[in-house]
Amino acid sequence: MLRVTRCYRFAASHRLHSHQLSEEENQEVYGKCNNPYGHGHNYMIAISVRGDIDPATGRAVDLTRLDNLVNERVVAIFDHRNLNEEVPVFASVVPTAENIGMEARRRLEEVWPANFPALEKVRVQETQRNIIEL
Amino acid sequence: MLRVTRCYRFAASHRLHSHQLSEEENQEVYGKCNNPYGHGHNYMIAISVRGDIDPATGRAVDLTRLDNLVNERVVAIFDHRNLNEEVPVFASVVPTAENIGMEARRRLEEVWPANFPALEKVRVQETQRNIIEL
Amino acid sequence: MLRVTRCYRFAASHRLHSHQLSEEENQEVYGKCNNPYGHGHNYMIAISVRGDIDPATGRAVDLTRLDNLVNERVVAIFDHRNLNEEVPVFASVVPTAENIGMEARRRLEEVWPANFPALEKVRVQETQRNIIEL
Amino acid sequence: MLRVTRCYRFAASHRLHSHQLSEEENQEVYGKCNNPYGHGHNYMIAISVRGDIDPATGRAVDLTRLDNLVNERVVAIFDHRNLNEEVPVFASVVPTAENIGMEARRRLEEVWPANFPALEKVRVQETQRNIIEL
Amino acid sequence: MLRVTRCYRFAASHRLHSHQLSEEENQEVYGKCNNPYGHGHNYMIAISVRGDIDPATGRAVDLTRLDNLVNERVVAIFDHRNLNEEVPVFASVVPTAENIGMEARRRLEEVWPANFPALEKVRVQETQRNIIEL
Amino acid sequence: MLRVTRCYRFAASHRLHSHQLSEEENQEVYGKCNNPYGHGHNYMIAISVRGDIDPATGRAVDLTRLDNLVNERVVAIFDHRNLNEEVPVFASVVPTAENIGMEARRRLEEVWPANFPALEKVRVQETQRNIIEL
Repeated sequence: MLRVTRCYRFAASHRLHSHQLSEEENQEVYGKCNNPYGHGHNYMIAISVRGDIDPATGRAVDLTRLDNLVNERVVAIFDHRNLNEEVPVFASVVPTAENIGMEARRRLEEVWPANFPALEKVRVQETQRNIIEL
Repeated sequence: MLRVTRCYRFAASHRLHSHQLSEEENQEVYGKCNNPYGHGHNYMIAISVRGDIDPATGRAVDLTRLDNLVNERVVAIFDHRNLNEEVPVFASVVPTAENIGMEARRRLEEVWPANFPALEKVRVQETQRNIIEL
Repeated sequence: MLRVTRCYRFAASHRLHSHQLSEEENQEVYGKCNNPYGHGHNYMIAISVRGDIDPATGRAVDLTRLDNLVNERVVAIFDHRNLNEEVPVFASVVPTAENIGMEARRRLEEVWPANFPALEKVRVQETQRNIIEL
Repeated sequence: MLRVTRCYRFAASHRLHSHQLSEEENQEVYGKCNNPYGHGHNYMIAISVRGDIDPATGRAVDLTRLDNLVNERVVAIFDHRNLNEEVPVFASVVPTAENIGMEARRRLEEVWPANFPALEKVRVQETQRNIIEL
Repeated sequence: MLRVTRCYRFAASHRLHSHQLSEEENQEVYGKCNNPYGHGHNYMIAISVRGDIDPATGRAVDLTRLDNLVNERVVAIFDHRNLNEEVPVFASVVPTAENIGMEARRRLEEVWPANFPALEKVRVQETQRNIIEL
Repeated sequence: MLRVTRCYRFAASHRLHSHQLSEEENQEVYGKCNNPYGHGHNYMIAISVRGDIDPATGRAVDLTRLDNLVNERVVAIFDHRNLNEEVPVFASVVPTAENIGMEARRRLEEVWPANFPALEKVRVQETQRNIIEL
């Protein structure tokens, strides 16, 4: 068994603000990321699957199918979007890198084909310095 | 004479939409960048100055002064901002990478110290693929 | 006037071998790049144009048109190709990074639209260490 | 115990084509990678070992020995080669990134010294977007 | 549970020389890194924690607290330092990447808050080619 | 005519301290880079030459000769060195990136072959953020 990772990029804007926190708490927790007008990032999302090599093809995953799946379920939803305004879950959930990764994984698992290698890891890189994996 | 370049980063959101174009033209010219809710990027801005090496210091520019100038005049204005809503010039000028570079250069030149090495180039990188220089 | 640069990628194979040199000279000049079976690289090609910002669009070049031009005239010709076997000019010209850049520029200039900003520079990066510009 | 990773690079060409598939299937599975003339990449291969720090040297692995091993068993075999034509296993096995990683690991394990820290992981990066680990 | 990684940078000098080895052994083990005058690197250190997302904040770790902790306990100690001369442990322990990672982790664990997500991994990158993780 | 650039790397330590400045001035000008014990960096130096393509070889410069020249005259002198202590010029000249570039260029020009393409530019990158060109 081996792991295959494929990287995708999208550009999006967001505002970090929690309805469960006061204005002061929001400011304290998120700092400049709490700016009411929002800001944005170039995101990189890497999808890792784990599977066996198919001896006929030498491949552990059909990359065309994987690309179609990730582009349709993740990239098309997040790319060139205001995450708070345009991705329904982020009306109530704060679009941190952690929650972006959670939502990407949830959206993939919802339709993950039974005959596909296992979805092992979702990795979101928001800036040069910040990465989440789940 | 030599050139010294120093790189700065900021994250911002923007929407590309021109008041001088119709809805259809905006859509045609900017595509998904015309999304009314906006999107965002991690920007890199590189400031290049040209000067002689000071024999006493071995430096062609005082980097502390340069950092103060660029952070105050550019990074603090653009970082974690919605460029259309929060940077006055972009109320009427479209915040393309070209115009971001123009505004950054204009803001630097407005206060550039007479005794400072010449401001030679401003370079804005918006994504892995898009760069402007002026 | 400012410079806009846009980056494209392609993967190709080649063999460095000159019909104007003896076997010994070919070996001496190209070393392991003279391997008769060839080898390959991930290439990055950056196209720079110089123009004025259009006040209506905030753009110095129509990126969609530029992409169409470069993809049709350069990327589609070189990507996933054996340069020696599949790009006619390289039957007689050695596909060094220098000549790849020359051919890319020639192919672009042949059809460069009169009303387009000037083609200023073509940059080819063959490995982490080797770059040519013309 | 800790993990030490060391990165190596090689440039190679390959064609993805399986003798177990029809022409149509090959075209469907590999797309432009099935081009009969081949294409190529700059590969990065990272070798990870797991071991304890030797208190006398502060090292978990002798990097000179590791370099000699990897250069002799992997880099010298793959670098500036046409993988299909020049690496025997790839006469019958498709030189996908998955199989390149498998062959690299097999070649290392075949001669891995008993007194060396454990070979933990082989990672092959074929393009900016494609990575395999085993 | 998910993993959050945050990257920090520092520049430092060191000499690899072990008091437990003879001059000849030091030369053989460390090569040019044994140069008595020392040399240096730009280091990248990535700190990974593992925790649950706090539903109120959407965060798995308070990045401000993490930054304060890492900057105070690691970056301020190593940055722009001669590791052998200025970091006490390296008077007797060789400042290899392995031991730099060990010391960084030890210094973090010594003060790691009980109510903080678990410190999962410390990764030190010394050059483009050398990485250690523990 | 075109420009060929080739990149080299070296790791070195230095201390920024000028004999022409007082202790206070040194501290003010160089900050933590004035630390008496020194610190270090991974440097990248890019050498650009300008020449015509030789029709017989497809090359604008003989890379083997260029490598020999740069390795002998620059890399071997700076790599894994304490610049202040081991490179004579830096006994009296402060080893800033500016002066490292000046010394590299001077050392190359001193022996630059008359029949070689012109040495056009030397670029030194000291950190992710600092670059000098001359």
